[in-house]
Amino acid sequence: LESGTVQQARRMLNALHPAEIAHLLESFPAAERKLLWELVDEENDGEVLLHVNDEVRSGLIEEMDDEELLAATSGMDMDDLADFLQDLPATLTGEVLRSMDKQNRQRLESVLSYPEDSAGGLMNTDTVTVRPDVSLDVVLRYLRMRGEMPEFTDKLFVVSRFDRFLGVLRVSDLLTREPDRTVAEILDRDFEPIAADTPAVDVAKTFEDRDLISAPVLDGEGRLVGRITIDDVVDVIRDEAERSIMNMAGLAEEEDLFAPVWSSARRRALWLGINLLTAFLAAYVIGLFEATIQQVVALAVLMPIVASMGGIAGTQTLTLVIRAIALGQVATRNARALLLKELRVGALNGVLWALVVGGVASLWFGRPAIGVIIATAMVINLACAALSGVVVPLSMKRLGIDPALAGGVVLTTVTDVVGFLAFLGLATLFLL
Amino acid sequence: LESGTVQQARRMLNALHPAEIAHLLESFPAAERKLLWELVDEENDGEVLLHVNDEVRSGLIEEMDDEELLAATSGMDMDDLADFLQDLPATLTGEVLRSMDKQNRQRLESVLSYPEDSAGGLMNTDTVTVRPDVSLDVVLRYLRMRGEMPEFTDKLFVVSRFDRFLGVLRVSDLLTREPDRTVAEILDRDFEPIAADTPAVDVAKTFEDRDLISAPVLDGEGRLVGRITIDDVVDVIRDEAERSIMNMAGLAEEEDLFAPVWSSARRRALWLGINLLTAFLAAYVIGLFEATIQQVVALAVLMPIVASMGGIAGTQTLTLVIRAIALGQVATRNARALLLKELRVGALNGVLWALVVGGVASLWFGRPAIGVIIATAMVINLACAALSGVVVPLSMKRLGIDPALAGGVVLTTVTDVVGFLAFLGLATLFLL
Repeated sequence: LESGTVQQARRMLNALHPAEIAHLLESFPAAERKLLWELVDEENDGEVLLHVNDEVRSGLIEEMDDEELLAATSGMDMDDLADFLQDLPATLTGEVLRSMDKQNRQRLESVLSYPEDSAGGLMNTDTVTVRPDVSLDVVLRYLRMRGEMPEFTDKLFVVSRFDRFLGVLRVSDLLTREPDRTVAEILDRDFEPIAADTPAVDVAKTFEDRDLISAPVLDGEGRLVGRITIDDVVDVIRDEAERSIMNMAGLAEEEDLFAPVWSSARRRALWLGINLLTAFLAAYVIGLFEATIQQVVALAVLMPIVASMGGIAGTQTLTLVIRAIALGQVATRNARALLLKELRVGALNGVLWALVVGGVASLWFGRPAIGVIIATAMVINLACAALSGVVVPLSMKRLGIDPALAGGVVLTTVTDVVGFLAFLGLATLFLL
Repeated sequence: LESGTVQQARRMLNALHPAEIAHLLESFPAAERKLLWELVDEENDGEVLLHVNDEVRSGLIEEMDDEELLAATSGMDMDDLADFLQDLPATLTGEVLRSMDKQNRQRLESVLSYPEDSAGGLMNTDTVTVRPDVSLDVVLRYLRMRGEMPEFTDKLFVVSRFDRFLGVLRVSDLLTREPDRTVAEILDRDFEPIAADTPAVDVAKTFEDRDLISAPVLDGEGRLVGRITIDDVVDVIRDEAERSIMNMAGLAEEEDLFAPVWSSARRRALWLGINLLTAFLAAYVIGLFEATIQQVVALAVLMPIVASMGGIAGTQTLTLVIRAIALGQVATRNARALLLKELRVGALNGVLWALVVGGVASLWFGRPAIGVIIATAMVINLACAALSGVVVPLSMKRLGIDPALAGGVVLTTVTDVVGFLAFLGLATLFLL
């Protein structure tokens, strides 16, 4: 009975698409994941391994022996294989290379020679090329003889005898134009190829802006070395979005949902430590006003409000500016205008909420002076939040630091310190 | 001279792709944006309008007269036109509908009859269909006669006489198989079509998991009503990612970088107001311990540290869980295991940082008791942060609230309240 259930589970599991199997594996704790992994058919292993996140992948690879790993690599596209090799033990990498024929080995080495997050690292080598001087009819007969076409082939690449890229021949043209025309008459010579050293995010932008399915990749000498397809670009877009969200919380983008407790705690500890430093800085600022707080305890009750509202308002500006930076929409020419606009928005909201907070504080503690002081501190802190929200990410960008990673910490440190300083400082000056 | 410069700017601008023009327009303040918009060639207007974000689009539409708007709609795909119509004045919508022939009007009405964020709202009606009983050669001759093919045509759709969907004929098969075979022999009957009422995010997942370029959309009766293409799916993925990031800061996902100050301030005020309520709640909790703080001012200095560390740790768990929910990876079956793991991670980091904070606090104020109390409060708050990080988003999900939108506010409210309560409460019990 038990083994019947296992058989059924195995059938259901392998009826899913590899990406779906991968999502499912990720959602199980380590022990159950291992059991489930054993149920995956060997022919699906490779595809599933490519779809799980980095951490889960290393875990699964540890469970496999060399033979299984070698089998999993067969049939992988060159770009996927290049990524996958980096997770394998060095001895096995050599074996994989030896098991390939010379042409494929050269292709793989070509992909491996570029950084993973560049066009060269993303590219595949399964290009279909044609010469300019043949007729479409010859191309059609060639394709029929060749048999299967690589996935995502919406265009063929036209190259000279020396692999020099001349242009693209769209499959739609191949299908709709008269067969006796030559490739040279039909090809699009204006199609802009992608240089192998283009960063992956720029490749993604190009694909999005120009609605591409595939594009040729050229090396520094203008020779066709591969092609990039939309599926890899979709992965780049998805990864980029995940990275921003995970990094904002100080997490690795490929964090395993069920990572071992130790390694998970260790990774997060760093972020907590950094934030602890900023918390101590804020505490230090409060400590400067111990005497004032002792006399007016209401200040201790109200002070987190000023700091927290500054943090929220600043984060709004920061988020907007970080997105604009990512889209390449902020430069020296419009930074001033942006700062001015955000300062105005901050001033408006500062005054509005200062009145509310000031009113409530006056009534709560029966001392209008406290209301006036907290209202003033709020306006100061929200203006400062708008200023930091624009200046902090732009400065980080200039220094080559990713504002999405560290912008939030710096910003809330500023709004905490300024918030406590303004509120307690004004109170010390005017209340004692 | 001046007009020469303008001519040059116009040429440079219109040499860009419409999506690039759109990005550029978005990066200018309103007045300059208006000037730039006038330089865009009329034939680019439609495409550019489709690429700018909602807010900028309304602004640009206001600048255009009816004739220009009507001209901009010509040549738009049905799905784009359906979206665009919703931004136009009602009188103009009627005019656009009247200017179309009967077939196109029916197609447009079909797209409009589905919600914008469903497969039906995403779909286009430019399907190329063939019958099963003809030979590939006939199909090839038909395509040549037909001339141009719609973008992203990697498969033709095979339908019966009554538009009932039978399967897909891949262009790659059309190119590589013998021309005397019939469509019925070659077509893929197992290709799973998409139901018109499928939510857009599920469509995106299907495209990603199965590496699709285009897919047929069927109505409730199994009739082919349109097709979805990868370019629209990429937009869905991009929008979804932007929405998460913008919503976390309480911003609209389509917020214009240079929105008018008033409307921008009004929208952000709501988020600040919600956060103010939670800040007052935290202040109320502190207020309960006024007497304690008056006797030991060090507590006021240290209390933000406990609250802030809880907020950071909780956000880490929350971010991880929200992503897992979005990927459909958390369910009743593994919620317990996840909670247990996060509690362990929280406990580990709680103890580690409690020791650090406790040590520093003891030395700073020379009272070991304060160190012990803040350390204990830290452990309690980090455990509570792990608990909320798992429970809050799962409960919200069950209640139909988007955890990415409101999860952060609820979580930090919990960690603030528990942090202050634990620290000041323990101090009241053991220090006085």
